[in-house]
Amino acid sequence: MSSQELRTRPSSTPAMMAVFDDASAIAHALAFEAALARALAFVGQASEDAAQGVARACNSLVVDPIELAGRAAHAGTLAIPLVTMLKEKIGHDAEASATVHRGATSQDLSDTVMMLQLRDGASLLMIDLARIMDGLASLARRYIDTAAVGRTMLQNALPITVGLRVAQWLAGIYGATRRFERACAEDIVLQFGGPVGTFGGLEGRGQTVHDQIAKEMGLKPAVAPWHARRDGVASIATNVAVLIGMIGKMARDISFLSQDAIGEAYEPRIVGRGGSSAMGHKRNPTGCQVALSAATRAPGLVASILSGLPQEQERGLGGWQAEWPALAELFMVAGGSAASMADAIEGLVVDEAAVARNLGTANIGHDIGEARRIVDKILAEYEDRT
Amino acid sequence: MSSQELRTRPSSTPAMMAVFDDASAIAHALAFEAALARALAFVGQASEDAAQGVARACNSLVVDPIELAGRAAHAGTLAIPLVTMLKEKIGHDAEASATVHRGATSQDLSDTVMMLQLRDGASLLMIDLARIMDGLASLARRYIDTAAVGRTMLQNALPITVGLRVAQWLAGIYGATRRFERACAEDIVLQFGGPVGTFGGLEGRGQTVHDQIAKEMGLKPAVAPWHARRDGVASIATNVAVLIGMIGKMARDISFLSQDAIGEAYEPRIVGRGGSSAMGHKRNPTGCQVALSAATRAPGLVASILSGLPQEQERGLGGWQAEWPALAELFMVAGGSAASMADAIEGLVVDEAAVARNLGTANIGHDIGEARRIVDKILAEYEDRT
Amino acid sequence: MSSQELRTRPSSTPAMMAVFDDASAIAHALAFEAALARALAFVGQASEDAAQGVARACNSLVVDPIELAGRAAHAGTLAIPLVTMLKEKIGHDAEASATVHRGATSQDLSDTVMMLQLRDGASLLMIDLARIMDGLASLARRYIDTAAVGRTMLQNALPITVGLRVAQWLAGIYGATRRFERACAEDIVLQFGGPVGTFGGLEGRGQTVHDQIAKEMGLKPAVAPWHARRDGVASIATNVAVLIGMIGKMARDISFLSQDAIGEAYEPRIVGRGGSSAMGHKRNPTGCQVALSAATRAPGLVASILSGLPQEQERGLGGWQAEWPALAELFMVAGGSAASMADAIEGLVVDEAAVARNLGTANIGHDIGEARRIVDKILAEYEDRT
Amino acid sequence: MSSQELRTRPSSTPAMMAVFDDASAIAHALAFEAALARALAFVGQASEDAAQGVARACNSLVVDPIELAGRAAHAGTLAIPLVTMLKEKIGHDAEASATVHRGATSQDLSDTVMMLQLRDGASLLMIDLARIMDGLASLARRYIDTAAVGRTMLQNALPITVGLRVAQWLAGIYGATRRFERACAEDIVLQFGGPVGTFGGLEGRGQTVHDQIAKEMGLKPAVAPWHARRDGVASIATNVAVLIGMIGKMARDISFLSQDAIGEAYEPRIVGRGGSSAMGHKRNPTGCQVALSAATRAPGLVASILSGLPQEQERGLGGWQAEWPALAELFMVAGGSAASMADAIEGLVVDEAAVARNLGTANIGHDIGEARRIVDKILAEYEDRT
Repeated sequence: MSSQELRTRPSSTPAMMAVFDDASAIAHALAFEAALARALAFVGQASEDAAQGVARACNSLVVDPIELAGRAAHAGTLAIPLVTMLKEKIGHDAEASATVHRGATSQDLSDTVMMLQLRDGASLLMIDLARIMDGLASLARRYIDTAAVGRTMLQNALPITVGLRVAQWLAGIYGATRRFERACAEDIVLQFGGPVGTFGGLEGRGQTVHDQIAKEMGLKPAVAPWHARRDGVASIATNVAVLIGMIGKMARDISFLSQDAIGEAYEPRIVGRGGSSAMGHKRNPTGCQVALSAATRAPGLVASILSGLPQEQERGLGGWQAEWPALAELFMVAGGSAASMADAIEGLVVDEAAVARNLGTANIGHDIGEARRIVDKILAEYEDRT
Repeated sequence: MSSQELRTRPSSTPAMMAVFDDASAIAHALAFEAALARALAFVGQASEDAAQGVARACNSLVVDPIELAGRAAHAGTLAIPLVTMLKEKIGHDAEASATVHRGATSQDLSDTVMMLQLRDGASLLMIDLARIMDGLASLARRYIDTAAVGRTMLQNALPITVGLRVAQWLAGIYGATRRFERACAEDIVLQFGGPVGTFGGLEGRGQTVHDQIAKEMGLKPAVAPWHARRDGVASIATNVAVLIGMIGKMARDISFLSQDAIGEAYEPRIVGRGGSSAMGHKRNPTGCQVALSAATRAPGLVASILSGLPQEQERGLGGWQAEWPALAELFMVAGGSAASMADAIEGLVVDEAAVARNLGTANIGHDIGEARRIVDKILAEYEDRT
Repeated sequence: MSSQELRTRPSSTPAMMAVFDDASAIAHALAFEAALARALAFVGQASEDAAQGVARACNSLVVDPIELAGRAAHAGTLAIPLVTMLKEKIGHDAEASATVHRGATSQDLSDTVMMLQLRDGASLLMIDLARIMDGLASLARRYIDTAAVGRTMLQNALPITVGLRVAQWLAGIYGATRRFERACAEDIVLQFGGPVGTFGGLEGRGQTVHDQIAKEMGLKPAVAPWHARRDGVASIATNVAVLIGMIGKMARDISFLSQDAIGEAYEPRIVGRGGSSAMGHKRNPTGCQVALSAATRAPGLVASILSGLPQEQERGLGGWQAEWPALAELFMVAGGSAASMADAIEGLVVDEAAVARNLGTANIGHDIGEARRIVDKILAEYEDRT
Repeated sequence: MSSQELRTRPSSTPAMMAVFDDASAIAHALAFEAALARALAFVGQASEDAAQGVARACNSLVVDPIELAGRAAHAGTLAIPLVTMLKEKIGHDAEASATVHRGATSQDLSDTVMMLQLRDGASLLMIDLARIMDGLASLARRYIDTAAVGRTMLQNALPITVGLRVAQWLAGIYGATRRFERACAEDIVLQFGGPVGTFGGLEGRGQTVHDQIAKEMGLKPAVAPWHARRDGVASIATNVAVLIGMIGKMARDISFLSQDAIGEAYEPRIVGRGGSSAMGHKRNPTGCQVALSAATRAPGLVASILSGLPQEQERGLGGWQAEWPALAELFMVAGGSAASMADAIEGLVVDEAAVARNLGTANIGHDIGEARRIVDKILAEYEDRT
């Protein structure tokens, strides 16, 4: 196997990488096949025995991801070799064997696997987003009256407060999080529709089979098969990218504030983090680096997914196959960005003396306008969520 | 002046280009300055006379867009020369002159102008989107039982119905339209906050000034100044791009169906449209061309906007200045795409004989599964909108 | 007409906008048709009289760009209405009329027009690039021994010299310029091949007609018609984007150096430039803003062009129609970026006292390694060009 | 470890994945450290014993990539934990220990590792590109006189020849390959310059150390350290993307030609490839799918790399850290694209009867113009390469 950790791990987290790894994909795929078999039994198109036979095979099949990946690459779809493996596992039970994958098509499997990974990835992301937002709310309160230099176009402008700066980060991340959660709630749905999205071969019971699978897997049912209609996928992708961008905005600001000549805020000092292989005195904003790197990559990843929208006919060629890698990458760097900035925000060091000193030097007065009111409004909106 | 019509007009519409042209920008900018003056009078920070003096100047100022553009390019912002022009127009009325642009900053003006253009652009877009969706709903009903070849990966697969194909286009465009409308409703808001977003210099009445301007201009008020927090802008941009992509999916399908060897559907024959400068017999899918060209451009335009999200500090340098051109371009090509496909769908020619003949030749049976039920569900969801 | 100057002019220059405007497009188009007519006469497929008749019409035809753009949008190509206008202008001379556009197709016209604009745009760009590079070479020499703080990851690191910093900007811009010039020299070529790129209808003399047109227009001949093979177009686009990025790197650095807390370098003070509509003391890095905005937009514009590469068959649908707007935008923002940074570099203010003060404060020693040697190598390579 | 094969393997090849995997990165990194130690000995700044001690440690160190990746993610650079591991391996030999990584900085290591991977990736890619180009040259010759329907905008247009279509694919891929090879030859170079790119701490011998490392590693020396100047990296990235696009153009055409209704060309029938998990009769163009998926992803990946060009100061924050993943992804999908289309072209099935039948039905005459001459010119240019 070719491990690819050195290039991917520094921009993600082990937990988020696990959400999108082969083990999770295989587990989701087998869960789908088991749920389908049981749903076929539910509508009387397979016996209970056959369904249990399939489910047992799904439970006990041990898949070598390298072998499966190689065979999937050859066949052109993940489902073909996996179904073969399942049937080999089932062996002589002809009815169970005939039940495997019946009524489904390859994309039903791969789209549903992707959706389950997105669901898990979104849950994981929410934990660090909550850490960031709670941390920001707390900082905004603490520094609500701390006047500071506001800087526009990289030049000293007029006073703001530290609390307002932080509250604006919160407003942006909260806005993006809210949209992201909504996109996930709306568009993380089961894909099941058969080869051309008609529930063909299921004697008029396809909708019921679909609903049963959704129920069993805890996935929202789809209004209609969507394998060649990717607006929902694009909505999730664009919303996570906006979120990455808003975390990136905060990271950019913190990295600017921690310049030696400014010195108003720093990431927490963590042993072994942010050093230099050559300069012992360095205190690099390593969390910001992760977040800014994610923000550099996200726009292009989104562009790839949007480019795939004009799918050809009843199943496209090339466009949707480009989605899974790009989406997984988006979520993986989102995970890295959120985790590293959660650490940075929870331990953020604000040097109030430097803040005051810089403001004095700037000689731009002390009118902070209605900064306090604005912070209160942003915090109120955040705290009113539910 | 350098007119740039030949390159832009074929991918847009005159109406959408007018929404984003200089005349509209100037009108919106002057309306903003007038509303601000009146709001200052409302809170007692300007006399009614001064406010009326500003408003009169805004009403009567005639601006040469070329001159204004040149001076804006030199100054680095649109507001600087416009405010100068307004003050020159006002002349000796010192109080009115001092009222112009008070409490505002350049970006308050330019962001609000952009928002007003987006509002108008969205309204315009909705007209053609409604034409497309109504046309599709009608086609889906008409051909709900018309069996046809379903094609996956460009190969004959299994039967679908013409109605299902069309209903899936509808589902995608409707889904994207719904999200787009919501993004506009949420994020087309006034920007007003002064140089660093604190309502500085307004003696604690900035929030009221903000609310008054919003009220007068018919724009939603913002929770807080957002000039350096661009998640709302990005949300509008990404949603219009997904919409362009979903129209592009339909255009791709129609262009495939109108290949000579398939011949199942055509754009309407319109005199002088879709011909060739060299081949008289050609019937090019020119509407689809416009929509596919838009879908080719949208992902990159979105990437530019997302790349600007990590704005520096209290006003960024370069990032947000990249937004207006990219957003305007997105809306202009969206307008072209929707208008050309509205014409195409309203006049779509379905050759039922060819559909039947191709299905017969394909020899893939006649099981259309639950296509009718799926069409009904999609239509029901569309018709239940409010 | 809908003038769109306010949005486009601040990121470009009048001269570059003129290169890509309607007047230039129409002039190039008519020059192409005249050259084609003369080439047909050259191979004996039109009389000299007919060729002169066409050429006269091309010289005297006055085209309203708005009308032409509208008709081009309707027809789907620029050539169809233009050819009609030319034939109307020619009137009763049947032979001249029949000679117009013979052997050509719409894309021969539009691709050649685009190439002529790129040629002119590249020439124009080179003037400002030379100003930048000469300015940088001169600055690098002047400050070759001026030690300064080197900063990595936004943190003080170890000493460099001002000369080295500047020489590195030069190395990047020179490298990108060299590649860009080469791409233009290789890939700005005539497109002529007829409807399907076979020189059809020209009785075996198409290659000669092609060569004659190229000769007359001063364009490099193509090895073969390339209307559906866009690697050359993509090469020009990507190379100009890398150039924009390298100018952006310099702009980013200058904007960082001109932060109040650092103050090591500034754009020249130009009356009326870089001010603020609200803060009189501001000295915004407006040239850098233009360059950074260009660098924010370029990657997305390139993505659009690359997305169009998989053209369908003998002439694509949508992909290549997306190129002209994106390429023109790339060149227009490149022009704005180069012009504004040429001004910035020619007048760059280096505050040597601040440089020295910051270095002293940083307490990072004075070892500048082999900075002088590196500067010399970079300058030698630059000066050895040709 | 989290294996991520299922998502990445189908769009790449095992050989290309190995070029970019952890084992190769670690081997390259250790080779760099060994070469540096020997170069330090060469200039007398380390003893031969110390250099051999370092080299021995580099040869014998066994690195767990998961552990290294985790520690690199924590530290923020790959070099920090690797240098620590090396020093632990060396143990008590103080001189050898002090020699490790002396004069270098983290980015010297990571950029050089990336360059070595690009070099190996480019070599690997050339093998399949040669297979494609030789296969195309042979097909172009074989079908040089086979008339076929030329199709523009997806409509029958005028006749071409199969040979011309194929020769045009060759011209595009050859053009892109030629530029790609040149970019690699120019810009795959050693990065070595120390913390701020001055060869600091090497007592004036840094240039010599640099040249020695380059010589030993078989990498081209750089004119000057380029760690914050990324035009060369961008040039490689954009050129591989154009190449992916040109292979994608061919894949798009083949997938169109293999539609059931056209049937003029097919990928070779390979057991177990291109089937459907639901439809036994399908013959999916799976090789084209891989190439089109790559072409969908490449523009976005390039956009990410271009977005990183405006690096901050003497080492950027976030931008260049985004390059390695995007570049590796570009090369990995390029490898998949080239390999799958090499198979497709070497076994391409042309159905001459279908070609003739379609041409007859199209009723567009038989004038193929100078198709033969054009094919000859393209082939001559290809065959004249050296």
